[in-house]
Amino acid sequence: MQPSGIVTLLSDFGLRDPFVGVMKGVILQWFPEAKLVDLSHEIAAQDVLAGAFWLAAAEPWFAPGTVHLAVVDPGVGGQRAALAMRAHGHVFVGPDNGLFELVCRRGAADEVRSIDAERLGFSLPCRTFHGRDLFAPVAALLAANKLPFEELGPLFEPRGRLDWPAADQSLAGWRGQVLLVDRFGNLISNIEPEGALGAEARVRVGTTSIRCAGTYGDVEPGELVAYVGSFGQLEIAVRDGSAAERLGAERGTPIILEGP
Amino acid sequence: MQPSGIVTLLSDFGLRDPFVGVMKGVILQWFPEAKLVDLSHEIAAQDVLAGAFWLAAAEPWFAPGTVHLAVVDPGVGGQRAALAMRAHGHVFVGPDNGLFELVCRRGAADEVRSIDAERLGFSLPCRTFHGRDLFAPVAALLAANKLPFEELGPLFEPRGRLDWPAADQSLAGWRGQVLLVDRFGNLISNIEPEGALGAEARVRVGTTSIRCAGTYGDVEPGELVAYVGSFGQLEIAVRDGSAAERLGAERGTPIILEGP
Amino acid sequence: MQPSGIVTLLSDFGLRDPFVGVMKGVILQWFPEAKLVDLSHEIAAQDVLAGAFWLAAAEPWFAPGTVHLAVVDPGVGGQRAALAMRAHGHVFVGPDNGLFELVCRRGAADEVRSIDAERLGFSLPCRTFHGRDLFAPVAALLAANKLPFEELGPLFEPRGRLDWPAADQSLAGWRGQVLLVDRFGNLISNIEPEGALGAEARVRVGTTSIRCAGTYGDVEPGELVAYVGSFGQLEIAVRDGSAAERLGAERGTPIILEGP
Repeated sequence: MQPSGIVTLLSDFGLRDPFVGVMKGVILQWFPEAKLVDLSHEIAAQDVLAGAFWLAAAEPWFAPGTVHLAVVDPGVGGQRAALAMRAHGHVFVGPDNGLFELVCRRGAADEVRSIDAERLGFSLPCRTFHGRDLFAPVAALLAANKLPFEELGPLFEPRGRLDWPAADQSLAGWRGQVLLVDRFGNLISNIEPEGALGAEARVRVGTTSIRCAGTYGDVEPGELVAYVGSFGQLEIAVRDGSAAERLGAERGTPIILEGP
Repeated sequence: MQPSGIVTLLSDFGLRDPFVGVMKGVILQWFPEAKLVDLSHEIAAQDVLAGAFWLAAAEPWFAPGTVHLAVVDPGVGGQRAALAMRAHGHVFVGPDNGLFELVCRRGAADEVRSIDAERLGFSLPCRTFHGRDLFAPVAALLAANKLPFEELGPLFEPRGRLDWPAADQSLAGWRGQVLLVDRFGNLISNIEPEGALGAEARVRVGTTSIRCAGTYGDVEPGELVAYVGSFGQLEIAVRDGSAAERLGAERGTPIILEGP
Repeated sequence: MQPSGIVTLLSDFGLRDPFVGVMKGVILQWFPEAKLVDLSHEIAAQDVLAGAFWLAAAEPWFAPGTVHLAVVDPGVGGQRAALAMRAHGHVFVGPDNGLFELVCRRGAADEVRSIDAERLGFSLPCRTFHGRDLFAPVAALLAANKLPFEELGPLFEPRGRLDWPAADQSLAGWRGQVLLVDRFGNLISNIEPEGALGAEARVRVGTTSIRCAGTYGDVEPGELVAYVGSFGQLEIAVRDGSAAERLGAERGTPIILEGP
């Protein structure tokens, strides 16, 4: 694999404190030519599910050979392993807690290794910031093609599992739920219809019935609408408004999709 | 025009979800050497006026040959056109909704074209994320000098209009209003005095009379002051405080500037 | 000193308005090859103490020859000097208000100069945005190695002082306080133990006694814990929770560390 030189970063560190800047400083020490791209650092604190979802949604839009550094890591400093994974031409570096589980739905992992910090010569005196002390240098070395993947550590079977709420599909339709509320108040669900919604399809949230359309532009301002969003999920929006507020919906709110 | 290689990005996508990161991934696929600079992604959702103001304020500080990708786009997926515009040595790419209107006050557009996605070979299966599927690749190709501007599509007369609240100027002074409240609580108005304020000038907001000075450093902590801000607008601040809170002011609050 | 080509940026400008993007545009005009890295722009408005702390915490993680542009500048447009400082192989550019005081604890300044804007040919018509009009071009020229440090202006003894709350150390332990609350609600104190905390050490906040450990992973979810954080400070956290909320703590809340 030819590295693209790109390292993406995703975390729950926020942008108020300079944790992200520090990781970038470390990456640039190991690989001065790195092209750094932030995916998000405003993942809710320790929300591995949101991190896993957005990482899987974002990574296909990057060139093959990109290294994705992801740190949503409630177990830092504990027993969880540190992982590096190769899958569909991309590389992923981060904690073993399910953060990379959804990425593998696009294409199974080719190789997963547990990072052996000691063997690589990284001492970890600080037990609270592996993003800086372990994941950043490893990501940089891989992006720079300076470290063969096989030398990271032993082959590893990930143990971390994502608490992913799968949607139920039947002949009558789907039963799912709200996964995430985006910045516009649109509801992103765990329902992934294949192709466009049929003209007869209806979506229900509680007692509210919602019509399906191609996008929010197809309905009047203030109207509720369901459509297949830009990452393939069924989404619910209010045109020029917030569906989350209108429906009082949040993560876990049930969504039903009826019809073809 | 020699491209600078810089692509700026401005949107109302926020930084919590990875929409901006995804646009950058796409840009780097088409133009790996792009230098990406964020202007703002915290424009209030669908606030075309704020987007237009800040884009016009920011773009003069970039090198000629810079491409500005701007997406505040309530009408995405609807009938509004997708534009590319050349003006005073810069290039602008985004929706036809008035977002580029203020940029043209610095210098009229040399050429505006409607982007013909089909002719360029971009299919748009997703109707909610033209920033990723259309504007990002077009911006990248223009920044990389890989696509002649004339081939984007037909010449076009923009239809989108900005709901811009012009200030009234008379011999007695100006009648304007608050356009934006900045992060410090300073009020940015639509009044654009030429040169510094006269020593006799006074500003009034409601029943409050405010003295004019060169900057907030010229008054005591806690004092209100009016001055010409860093982008040429009349601004009102409280030194070491928030003028928006002090005056209960928000967008649309009337401001009067009296005197020379 | 060989420049690294990196320019870091730290400010209290926020990310909602495009002030940071504008500074980057200016830097890239003077030094198109600059590698720009944000440390933080969400320093609380005019909070010089937080800016100084995070700058000192972050800069050691960057390559020698890095230029750090820092603007938390309540006195902009007033009498405070504009500084450039060389220390331990890094360069710092910003206002003379104590912002660089903590950086000098890592290694004393080798040279501090007052920036003579007029001599350098920078006119400052705008008195509210020296980040754009003075600090950005100076940082760019230094990072590009296009301006000898000696030509910036006269040698200067900084006058700005940081209102730094030093912790008291005695045989019995430390008396300090909360400096900052990080994004996770962890309390970062001004107590800087050398090495790890002893097994007998106890931390007290008000009437609450808190056990010490290596990291929050060493305690049960929901439990309070004190440990030496990733930048060497004594920190207090609640595993999977917010210590600031639990203890009702904020900047200035007293913290006592007892025992070896």
